[in-house]
Amino acid sequence: MIGVLGGGQLGRMLGLAGLPLGQRFVFLDPSPDAPARDVGELIVAEYDDRKALDELASRVDVVTYEFENVPAATVEALAERVPVFPSAGALHATQDRLVEKGSLVDAGIPVAPFRGATTGIEVRNAITELGLPVILKTRRGGYDGKGQAVITGDADVEVGVAALRGADLIVEGRVDFDRELSVIAVRGEDGAFAAYPLVENHHAGGILRFSLAPAPTVEASLQAKAEGFARSFMEAHDYVGVMTLELFQVGDGLLVNEVAPRVHNSGHWTIEGAEVSQFENHLRACLGLPLGATDAVGSSVMANVLGALPDVASITAIAGAHLHLYGKEPRPLRKIGHVTVRRDEREWWKRLDGGLRSLATVLPALEHAS
Amino acid sequence: MIGVLGGGQLGRMLGLAGLPLGQRFVFLDPSPDAPARDVGELIVAEYDDRKALDELASRVDVVTYEFENVPAATVEALAERVPVFPSAGALHATQDRLVEKGSLVDAGIPVAPFRGATTGIEVRNAITELGLPVILKTRRGGYDGKGQAVITGDADVEVGVAALRGADLIVEGRVDFDRELSVIAVRGEDGAFAAYPLVENHHAGGILRFSLAPAPTVEASLQAKAEGFARSFMEAHDYVGVMTLELFQVGDGLLVNEVAPRVHNSGHWTIEGAEVSQFENHLRACLGLPLGATDAVGSSVMANVLGALPDVASITAIAGAHLHLYGKEPRPLRKIGHVTVRRDEREWWKRLDGGLRSLATVLPALEHAS
Repeated sequence: MIGVLGGGQLGRMLGLAGLPLGQRFVFLDPSPDAPARDVGELIVAEYDDRKALDELASRVDVVTYEFENVPAATVEALAERVPVFPSAGALHATQDRLVEKGSLVDAGIPVAPFRGATTGIEVRNAITELGLPVILKTRRGGYDGKGQAVITGDADVEVGVAALRGADLIVEGRVDFDRELSVIAVRGEDGAFAAYPLVENHHAGGILRFSLAPAPTVEASLQAKAEGFARSFMEAHDYVGVMTLELFQVGDGLLVNEVAPRVHNSGHWTIEGAEVSQFENHLRACLGLPLGATDAVGSSVMANVLGALPDVASITAIAGAHLHLYGKEPRPLRKIGHVTVRRDEREWWKRLDGGLRSLATVLPALEHAS
Repeated sequence: MIGVLGGGQLGRMLGLAGLPLGQRFVFLDPSPDAPARDVGELIVAEYDDRKALDELASRVDVVTYEFENVPAATVEALAERVPVFPSAGALHATQDRLVEKGSLVDAGIPVAPFRGATTGIEVRNAITELGLPVILKTRRGGYDGKGQAVITGDADVEVGVAALRGADLIVEGRVDFDRELSVIAVRGEDGAFAAYPLVENHHAGGILRFSLAPAPTVEASLQAKAEGFARSFMEAHDYVGVMTLELFQVGDGLLVNEVAPRVHNSGHWTIEGAEVSQFENHLRACLGLPLGATDAVGSSVMANVLGALPDVASITAIAGAHLHLYGKEPRPLRKIGHVTVRRDEREWWKRLDGGLRSLATVLPALEHAS
């Protein structure tokens, strides 16, 4: 029995991957409608509810999480009773953006220049050192562009600080990148390491819209660089499970933008597009099983389904399309599903008449394709 | 919401395929431990429990089954309230072996010679006409070699009839076949038809041990013949959903041995080894969605896990292996799981040192490989 903190779509897909391995699941989530309820039992409770955590710990062999903003005390309390992967230490290194940047620097991994700040004055001092534009982010929480503000001129500072409501902040120099990539890596308790091919990600409004996997035109040296960063970070924190590095490519170089200590939206294509998915590989790592092959099978476009339920018939009519709905209530810009279109040919989308945008009538996320 | 009669491994895998399509499931099964309990709600009741059937009908949009030995009256009662696929008529044509053979002959599909019989005298008369050896089968029920007896000499007749406990019987002339194949086909309500590549099946003791998919050395004409049989039968019965034909290959010819009006053990490889699985395609047909591509992705060996829980670490260490456990209690020769080993190369198993048998230490079903 596997315990999972968080019962969102990532938990749901962990469950779908784990049932065939003979595993059963207990999820802990504050929402009674949590998407993972369909693939295991759901304990409806806050993440700091000690009684609920006790119940979870008493019923499972191992605990993992699909959501990194779990209180550190929760993970530590669970870890006293049952193995938790990734460990409290690994979580600590990634759930606060300022600590995370420090951890990356310590591991010799390049990042955008950054400063910690709390007040408007500290933000201004940071801007003096880093130069405009900068991105203001809350150190904790925040996802899909929430908890962020771009500062392009002096006048934005007070507005930005006010919008983030006096939270502890990190000020990051904005990187003029060529493209956004990510690497999904997995590490076993025995130190075994594997990484999927680099993925090219396309965001709009701070939200991932679609990914191309494997990313087009990646030199072996770039893949090696990304894998090296992932391996260094994981080894430094004795990390067990799947971890994602969000990356900026600048010329031949890579900067790490963010670390996600979990399976990741930019890895959803691995369900059909890789030999063994990120979800199964995360579970294999947590269970002490051999890691599965991370090779791509053909090439894939993963497009998020945001906000509104899609027309299932139109999607299933696309050759190679695989629909994944999460059982979530539609709400503007909410991630309620994704579609992976997988075909055998490399970069098949380049041969579509009108390119990827030609699929946007059915998959609106592809409106953002060039 | 989809209702499924039967909550075994086939129901479980239908659920795993249907959750990503945004579907939820209610299963009806007499066993509280039914494997499908992990992927939907389970109504524990007999298949003729009218109150339970009422509950099922009131909660779902469509009903299907994973198990053809459902009472005809059950399907008819459900069909008055909610669409049932395949229809009662299609089920009627396949759940009695004697009626099934007649349906096949009516559709112009070749079968082994057969006679109906109830008493020992009728069996002897059939043997006089068909010649020895023959196979005695119960007309209804029976699976995995149960409800069957091979008669090679006169002395076996009374023993065989007694073993089958006076059930209505069918006597079949034994076919001297070259190999056993199967074809999994799917048909939509709009008449759309698709079929997977032929699969080569290896039985021992009446139980499927492993399948090779696509079957080696299949001429296009043989594939066309199998698809033609499936299409004829489905059109004759306005069949909606997945259907399986078990086939004997004799030279360039094919005989149909059995029809399964459902997803089938010899189609489990399609989860990883085909673009869209038999489970998803069955659901697509039942939901009126476009059928998915049935093309193979690489080639696969599907080996059943019978009787004892396997060593998960050894299985997951095999390149390209995908484990599927069903959550069933181990019991001698019980199907408790399967493993599909998929690799990109055609017939990769021929290049293994020692052939497929070399994997038998981990997958005992492959002991039966030549």
